[in-house]
Amino acid sequence: MNISLEEIAARIGAQLVGDPEHRINSCSTLISADADQLSFIYDKKYLPALQQSKAGVVILSAQFAADCPAHALIVENPYLAYAKAASFIHSKAKAVGSIHPSAVMGENSRIADDCVIAANVVIGDNVHIGRGGKIGPGSVLGDDIIIGENVNIIANVTITDGCRLGDGVSLHPGCVIGSDGFGYAPAENRAWCKIPQLGVVVIGDNVDVGANTTIDCGALDNTVIGNGVKIDNLVQIAHNVEIGEHSAIAACTGIAGSTKIGKHCTLAGGVGLVGHLTVADNVHVTGMTMVTHSIKQAGAYSSGTPFQSNSAWLKNAVRFKQLDALTKKINKLIKTNKENDGAR
Amino acid sequence: MNISLEEIAARIGAQLVGDPEHRINSCSTLISADADQLSFIYDKKYLPALQQSKAGVVILSAQFAADCPAHALIVENPYLAYAKAASFIHSKAKAVGSIHPSAVMGENSRIADDCVIAANVVIGDNVHIGRGGKIGPGSVLGDDIIIGENVNIIANVTITDGCRLGDGVSLHPGCVIGSDGFGYAPAENRAWCKIPQLGVVVIGDNVDVGANTTIDCGALDNTVIGNGVKIDNLVQIAHNVEIGEHSAIAACTGIAGSTKIGKHCTLAGGVGLVGHLTVADNVHVTGMTMVTHSIKQAGAYSSGTPFQSNSAWLKNAVRFKQLDALTKKINKLIKTNKENDGAR
Amino acid sequence: MNISLEEIAARIGAQLVGDPEHRINSCSTLISADADQLSFIYDKKYLPALQQSKAGVVILSAQFAADCPAHALIVENPYLAYAKAASFIHSKAKAVGSIHPSAVMGENSRIADDCVIAANVVIGDNVHIGRGGKIGPGSVLGDDIIIGENVNIIANVTITDGCRLGDGVSLHPGCVIGSDGFGYAPAENRAWCKIPQLGVVVIGDNVDVGANTTIDCGALDNTVIGNGVKIDNLVQIAHNVEIGEHSAIAACTGIAGSTKIGKHCTLAGGVGLVGHLTVADNVHVTGMTMVTHSIKQAGAYSSGTPFQSNSAWLKNAVRFKQLDALTKKINKLIKTNKENDGAR
Repeated sequence: MNISLEEIAARIGAQLVGDPEHRINSCSTLISADADQLSFIYDKKYLPALQQSKAGVVILSAQFAADCPAHALIVENPYLAYAKAASFIHSKAKAVGSIHPSAVMGENSRIADDCVIAANVVIGDNVHIGRGGKIGPGSVLGDDIIIGENVNIIANVTITDGCRLGDGVSLHPGCVIGSDGFGYAPAENRAWCKIPQLGVVVIGDNVDVGANTTIDCGALDNTVIGNGVKIDNLVQIAHNVEIGEHSAIAACTGIAGSTKIGKHCTLAGGVGLVGHLTVADNVHVTGMTMVTHSIKQAGAYSSGTPFQSNSAWLKNAVRFKQLDALTKKINKLIKTNKENDGAR
Repeated sequence: MNISLEEIAARIGAQLVGDPEHRINSCSTLISADADQLSFIYDKKYLPALQQSKAGVVILSAQFAADCPAHALIVENPYLAYAKAASFIHSKAKAVGSIHPSAVMGENSRIADDCVIAANVVIGDNVHIGRGGKIGPGSVLGDDIIIGENVNIIANVTITDGCRLGDGVSLHPGCVIGSDGFGYAPAENRAWCKIPQLGVVVIGDNVDVGANTTIDCGALDNTVIGNGVKIDNLVQIAHNVEIGEHSAIAACTGIAGSTKIGKHCTLAGGVGLVGHLTVADNVHVTGMTMVTHSIKQAGAYSSGTPFQSNSAWLKNAVRFKQLDALTKKINKLIKTNKENDGAR
Repeated sequence: MNISLEEIAARIGAQLVGDPEHRINSCSTLISADADQLSFIYDKKYLPALQQSKAGVVILSAQFAADCPAHALIVENPYLAYAKAASFIHSKAKAVGSIHPSAVMGENSRIADDCVIAANVVIGDNVHIGRGGKIGPGSVLGDDIIIGENVNIIANVTITDGCRLGDGVSLHPGCVIGSDGFGYAPAENRAWCKIPQLGVVVIGDNVDVGANTTIDCGALDNTVIGNGVKIDNLVQIAHNVEIGEHSAIAACTGIAGSTKIGKHCTLAGGVGLVGHLTVADNVHVTGMTMVTHSIKQAGAYSSGTPFQSNSAWLKNAVRFKQLDALTKKINKLIKTNKENDGAR
C-alpha cells in the first residue's frame, strides 16, 4: 500500500513532525529503510541506528524526536503503533471469493461467499466457514466444524471433526487441531486400552496457533483456548487443557492433560506443565521450567540450573546427587559446634 | 449407537443394577450426562458429582453402588470397562470400501477391497494395505510399504519407502514415519557428509503414533516399535531406536539414535534420552528427565530441579555453580573440626 | 547399483585388498551383510563382528586389515569413506523431468526441465526452481520463492512466500519454512497486537532440515541458515535467528528470536537458547542445556542435573530450593570457626 504520512498519523493517532504528503509503501529496519519506507525505535540502544537512518519516517516516542533525521510520527507506545502501521501498510488486497477446482468439498457445508478455498483443500460435511475465511493449500478439515469470520488457515493444517474456531483465528502451517488425547486404561496382559476421545477443541476469537503445534481434543469435555491466546510453534496442548484469555505460550512448551492456565499468563519456550494443575492469572514462567504443582499466586517462576563449561558442570552435577546427604552433614556439624560452644 | 443396558452389561461383563431395557446413545461426564448417556466413576473425589448425576447409567465399582442415583453397571475396573463401553457406543458404521477419485495411486499396489482411501492421498508403487484400512486425506505413502489390517491413518501423514505397519495401528495427523536419521560423518573442510539412511521403520500391532511425531528410519538396521506401544504428540524417535512392547511415551519426548527401551516402560512428557543406551523393562521416567546413561533396574527415575519463584530460584541457581566448591569447603571443615576435637 | 570393488576403491580413494572384479550391490552391517554387500568398521568394539562378517567387502582402517575375513578397502577415515560409498551405491536412477497432472502450478514460474514435481504439489506464482529439483507429494510452496539446484523436498513440506533455498538443500517431511515469527506488542485491554512478520527465510547450500522442524521468517530482516548447516527433526528456529556455516542442531532444540549461532557449532537434542544471544564459533552444547546468555568462548557447555532414582531425587531436589540458605549457613559456620580458632 502506498500511503501518506498524514494518513498514517491519523490511523495510529500520532503527532506528525514532517511532510504530511510524503508517501511510504513498506516497512524496514532503521538501518535498511529507504525514503519510501517506515521504521520505528522503541529502545535507546538503537539510537545510533536512528541517527543514521535514511527511513522516510520513523515512529518514536517524544524522547527520541530530536535525534530523528527523518520525518517522525510521535506516539506514546512506538512498538504498538508500529505493529498497527505495519499491519495496514502491508495488508493485501482482499481476494475475491473462490473455491479452487482441486478442492474437495463435503455436503451440507455453508461457506461464506467471499471465502478463498485453496488448491488441494479437503473439507468434510456440515462445515460452516464465516465471512473472509481463507483455507490454505493442503489443509484438511473434518466434518461438523464451525469457523468464525476472517479466519486464516495458512497451509497443510488438519482440523478434526466437530472443532470450533472463533473470529480472527490464524492457524499456521502444519498445526493440528483436535488430534486424539493420549488416554489409555491399563488392560489385560499389561496392554493399554484406548479411551475414546469424544470431546473437541474450542478456540476463541483472535487466537494464533503456531506451525506444527498440536492441540488435542477433550476426552469427554472439551479443550478450550480462550480469546486472544497466542501459541507459538511446536507446542503440545493435551486433552481438556484450558488456556485463559490473552495468555501467550512460546515454542516447544508442553501442557499435560486437564491443566488450567489463567488469563494473561506467559509461558516461555520449552516449559513443561504436568497434568491436572491450576495456574493463576498473571503467572509468568521462564524458559524450560518444569511446573509440577499448581501455582496460586501471580508472579514469575523458574526452575533448572544455569549452564557452565562442561567440565565445571560435571563436578557440580555429581554433587547434586549428594545434596541431601551434604545438607544433613552440615546440619549435624552446626549442631555439634553449638554443643561444643555450650560445653566450652 | 443406541444400545440397551442389558447389552452393555453383557459386553463389558458388568452386573447391572437397574432397568435392562433402558437405552443410551453416547457417553458424558457425571455432571453433563443426560438420561440417554452413560458415565463412569473411578475415584472417590467424584463422589459428589455421582450423587447429583442425571446420567442414564454409571459404570462403577461396588463401593460406589449405594451412592448412585442412576442405573449402575458394577465392575471391578470401571476405567477399563468405560474405555471398552465408550469404544463400541461411539463406534462408527463401517464405511464401504472406496478410493476417492482425487487419490493418486501407484502401480502394483494391493489394497484390500474394504479400504477407504480419502481425497488427495498419494500412494506409491508396490504398496499393500490389509483389510479395513483407512488412509486419511492428504496422506503421502511412498513405495514398497506394507500395512496390516484395520490400520487408521488420520490425515496429512507421511510414510516413506519400505516402512512396515502391523495390524490395528493408528497414525495421527501430521506424523512422519521413516524420515531420514540424523547421521553425518565429519568431512573435508569441516563440512558434514551425509550417511545414507538405508533402514526402514517397522511398527508392530496396535501401536498409536501421535500428531506431528517423527520416527526416523534406521541407518542400516531398522527402527523398531514393538506391539502395543503408545506414542503421544511431538515425540522424536531417532534412527535404530527400539521400543519394547506396551511401553508408552508422552509428548515432547526425544529418544536419540540406537537407544533401546524395554517393555512396559513409561516415559513422561519432555523426557530426553541420549543415544546408544539400554533401558530395562518396567522403567518409569518422570517428566523432563535427562537420561544420560543406561538404566539396568526397573523403577522410577527423575532429574531436574523443582520450580520456585524466580527471585528465590535466581539465588539457588547461582549457588549450583559453586556446589562442588561448597562441598569441598564443607569436607575440609569437617576434617578440621575432627582434628580440633582430637587435639582438644 | 551393481559395482565392482575396483571402481569403489577408485571412487573413495581406498587401497583394495582382494578381488577387484568382485561386485556388490548394497550396504549392510557387519553382522547382516552378505557376499554382495559392503560393510564398514570404525570402532574396535565391532571387532568380533568384523571377524565373523560374511560381507563381500569391508571399509576399514589399516589397523583392522589383519582381522578382516572379507575383501577389504583400506582408508584413513572409514566412516567418511562409507558415507561416500553408500551414497553412490544406493543412488537412484535420475528421474525424467515431469510435473504430475494433479500438481497445481502458479503463474510466471520457472521450473528447470529436469525437475520432478510430484502429485498434489501446490506451487504459487513467480517461483524459480533450479536443475535437478524434486518437489515431493503434498508440498505447498507460496509465491516468489527461489530454489537452487538439486534441491530435494520430500513430502508435505510448506514454504511460504519469498523464501530462498540454495543448492543441494534437503527438506524432510512436514517441515515448515517461513512460518510467521512469534511477535506481538502489548496492546489496549491487555490484549496482544500482532507485529507483521515481513522478512523471509534464507537457506544456504547443502542444508538439511528435519521432519516437522519449523523455521520462522524474520520480522523485518531475514532468518538466515548458513551453508552446510544440518538440522534434525522437531527443531524450532525463531525469527531473525542466524546459524553459522556447518553447524549441526539435534532434535527437539529451540532457538529463540534474534539469537546468532556461530560456525561449526553443535547443539545436542532438547537444547534451549533464549533470544538475542550470540554464540561463538566451535561451541558444543550438551543435551537439554538451557543457554541463558551469550557464549563468547569456544568449548563445551552444559546444564541440568543428573538423573537418579525418583526417591533419591526427591530428597535432593527439595534441598536445591534451600541451596542459597545452606551456602550462607556454611559461610557463617566457617567464619565462626575461624574466629573461635583465633580466640583459642
